[in-house]
Amino acid sequence: MSKGNLFIVTGPSGAGKGTVLGRVMPSMEDLHYSVSATTRAPREGEEDGVNYYFLRKEQFLEMIGQGAFLEHAEYVGNYYGTPAGPVDECLNKGMDVVLEIEVQGALIVKQKRPEAKLVFIIPPSFSDLELRLRSRGTETEETIAKRLEKAREEYQMADQYDYIVLNDKVEKAADELRAIILASRCAVGRRINLLR
Amino acid sequence: MSKGNLFIVTGPSGAGKGTVLGRVMPSMEDLHYSVSATTRAPREGEEDGVNYYFLRKEQFLEMIGQGAFLEHAEYVGNYYGTPAGPVDECLNKGMDVVLEIEVQGALIVKQKRPEAKLVFIIPPSFSDLELRLRSRGTETEETIAKRLEKAREEYQMADQYDYIVLNDKVEKAADELRAIILASRCAVGRRINLLR
Repeated sequence: MSKGNLFIVTGPSGAGKGTVLGRVMPSMEDLHYSVSATTRAPREGEEDGVNYYFLRKEQFLEMIGQGAFLEHAEYVGNYYGTPAGPVDECLNKGMDVVLEIEVQGALIVKQKRPEAKLVFIIPPSFSDLELRLRSRGTETEETIAKRLEKAREEYQMADQYDYIVLNDKVEKAADELRAIILASRCAVGRRINLLR
Repeated sequence: MSKGNLFIVTGPSGAGKGTVLGRVMPSMEDLHYSVSATTRAPREGEEDGVNYYFLRKEQFLEMIGQGAFLEHAEYVGNYYGTPAGPVDECLNKGMDVVLEIEVQGALIVKQKRPEAKLVFIIPPSFSDLELRLRSRGTETEETIAKRLEKAREEYQMADQYDYIVLNDKVEKAADELRAIILASRCAVGRRINLLR
């Protein structure tokens, strides 16, 4: 059996990655959403292994030492990372796997796994992105300015991306992301057994 | 503006290429179905420029001399070919173009245009293919045997194909072909302008 495909879904903060994926995931079979690991404390309602794998700092550092993460980062005193184990387990079973991660992490995974498909989800415009960030009501003016500056930098990395999905309408964006995943399943490398 | 993508849709005779395309074409915008040229006489109801470009033999031979075909072949005394002009006109306008052609012609176009996506449509099985050919009621036992033998040869050329679509259910096959075309439109090369 041929291995599954790895999809790295990324984009500027506020582009709507989660919303688009929320539509795609339930509509496709054999698609695994990779759960991240973190050292931050669970928030109310969060479940271990569902929202995150909640690890102690020593566990996390040990896993870093073992090279057990596809990517990891520290953010306001907590660690976040993508454990390679569950991802490879699914891929080896022939399932496709989706990582929903930040652009920096996405580029690291893409370097390690060049065969992965990097999908960059963007908002219709920068003014729209600003609006979306502002409407969250949780970000300071300074954070918003920083995030926009970061988005501008991320737009410069286009040569690292495989696909661009414009999230002007979430149904259309979800349809496109689904098409990217479905088309990859039709690639001759995945289906060569059908010709034998 | 970036150029459109060229899709070569092919497969064994009897695999259902036409039926699948009949579902996909009306459901997508900016998709041009390439009309073939032929020297055979129009059948009742066939229109020039719709079913075929009907050409006189001298015209056809002159066009061959000018290199005006992406591929051409002679079949029971008549010429058939894919005129390059209308294809390139559409591609240059940014439209996607679909060629529905025989495997031999498909491989010739793929050599000339390596960036084209070659989609190989197959029936669920060889016994199913035999059934489909037989149910047409127009083929002799000898023709059926020849077509099956040809299909076997075509299955060996897998390294030349980009995608394989299994036509076990026509809706599913059409969904996959549509996904292949839609996903190609999301490729970073086509959408780089969105990042500027």
